[in-house]
Amino acid sequence: MRQSTKRLEISTRGKGLYEISDPVVAWVQESGLKTGLLTVFIQHTSASLTIQENADPDVIADLNDHFNRLAPEDNKLYRHTVEGPDDMPAHIRTALTGTQLAIPVIDGRLALGTWQGIYVFEHRRAGHCRSVVLHLLGE
Amino acid sequence: MRQSTKRLEISTRGKGLYEISDPVVAWVQESGLKTGLLTVFIQHTSASLTIQENADPDVIADLNDHFNRLAPEDNKLYRHTVEGPDDMPAHIRTALTGTQLAIPVIDGRLALGTWQGIYVFEHRRAGHCRSVVLHLLGE
Amino acid sequence: MRQSTKRLEISTRGKGLYEISDPVVAWVQESGLKTGLLTVFIQHTSASLTIQENADPDVIADLNDHFNRLAPEDNKLYRHTVEGPDDMPAHIRTALTGTQLAIPVIDGRLALGTWQGIYVFEHRRAGHCRSVVLHLLGE
Repeated sequence: MRQSTKRLEISTRGKGLYEISDPVVAWVQESGLKTGLLTVFIQHTSASLTIQENADPDVIADLNDHFNRLAPEDNKLYRHTVEGPDDMPAHIRTALTGTQLAIPVIDGRLALGTWQGIYVFEHRRAGHCRSVVLHLLGE
Repeated sequence: MRQSTKRLEISTRGKGLYEISDPVVAWVQESGLKTGLLTVFIQHTSASLTIQENADPDVIADLNDHFNRLAPEDNKLYRHTVEGPDDMPAHIRTALTGTQLAIPVIDGRLALGTWQGIYVFEHRRAGHCRSVVLHLLGE
Repeated sequence: MRQSTKRLEISTRGKGLYEISDPVVAWVQESGLKTGLLTVFIQHTSASLTIQENADPDVIADLNDHFNRLAPEDNKLYRHTVEGPDDMPAHIRTALTGTQLAIPVIDGRLALGTWQGIYVFEHRRAGHCRSVVLHLLGE
């Protein structure tokens, strides 16, 4: 049994979903593991991780819009407004989606379904550089 | 340290929660592991996984209803409508709940609480066959 | 490769977030692991786990308030009302946030970001004693 870790730096351009499947899948392939467990972890509280459909780009746009409805930018709703009207909604959106994913490796490949992609979900209006940590364990 | 993996095929009959605790617990028992980590992963973007109370069936019905309120079937809200009025809400409901669970194994059994059950949460109106992957690691 | 497990008992004083980073980080340090994976699991269906900003306490208060909006205490919305008006909302809030976290250990420390803290999110009005299970794996 062996482990490896890696850090990805993902540049975002404001609210929305950014697919990171390619570098993640490539890194898992390089490891040569047959069976194992991948953990993806984002080191932020205003951006999150989600697995979503990577076929129709409208899904991604609708998802972002709906999270704006679930956590509206409206300073009257929040105490924490000093970092701008999008910051407290960003924390709520992060809590609703989560900062970590675990995906098994089976038969030498990540067990993603046909339409599943791995996304960084940026919740701030401005672009950010987001740090994503990968941990892989198996043999 | 050893690993094992398994695939469950879960037939759903439309929106709602379907408990899968029994086959999951049975498979973990068979492994004979004393200490370890179970990962449950669903290979879809319109069905998800959740741990919920398995005592009162009303909880499960209310949960499904409330997710209908959080992500309503209303084509006016979404761009992605080609797969039916329930498809985009299904993606949102999946993002809100997640596609993976990790549960420790301690003293030879899954560390589920007294009232916790493992559920597939189907978000489409029609029944589907859902693929759930299990990964177990420990000794 | 080795494993260890631990149980934390967390006393809550009603709805809100309770930081547990200190005992979790201390336990991971004591293990002496260089590289590994920590899993945090809460054995309840009316309290959950989340990673959130631990800088401004207003974030935590706003987060709790917004979850009251997402899952209101309103018996007319639910069938399951026998355990009080806060019980069904507690199950919904738990489904929206989740019962488990996985955090890599890298270079001998938990890979939490600068502002990330680990929280138990209590969803019932009354205080409870919540059981949190830790599982650590690595070398």
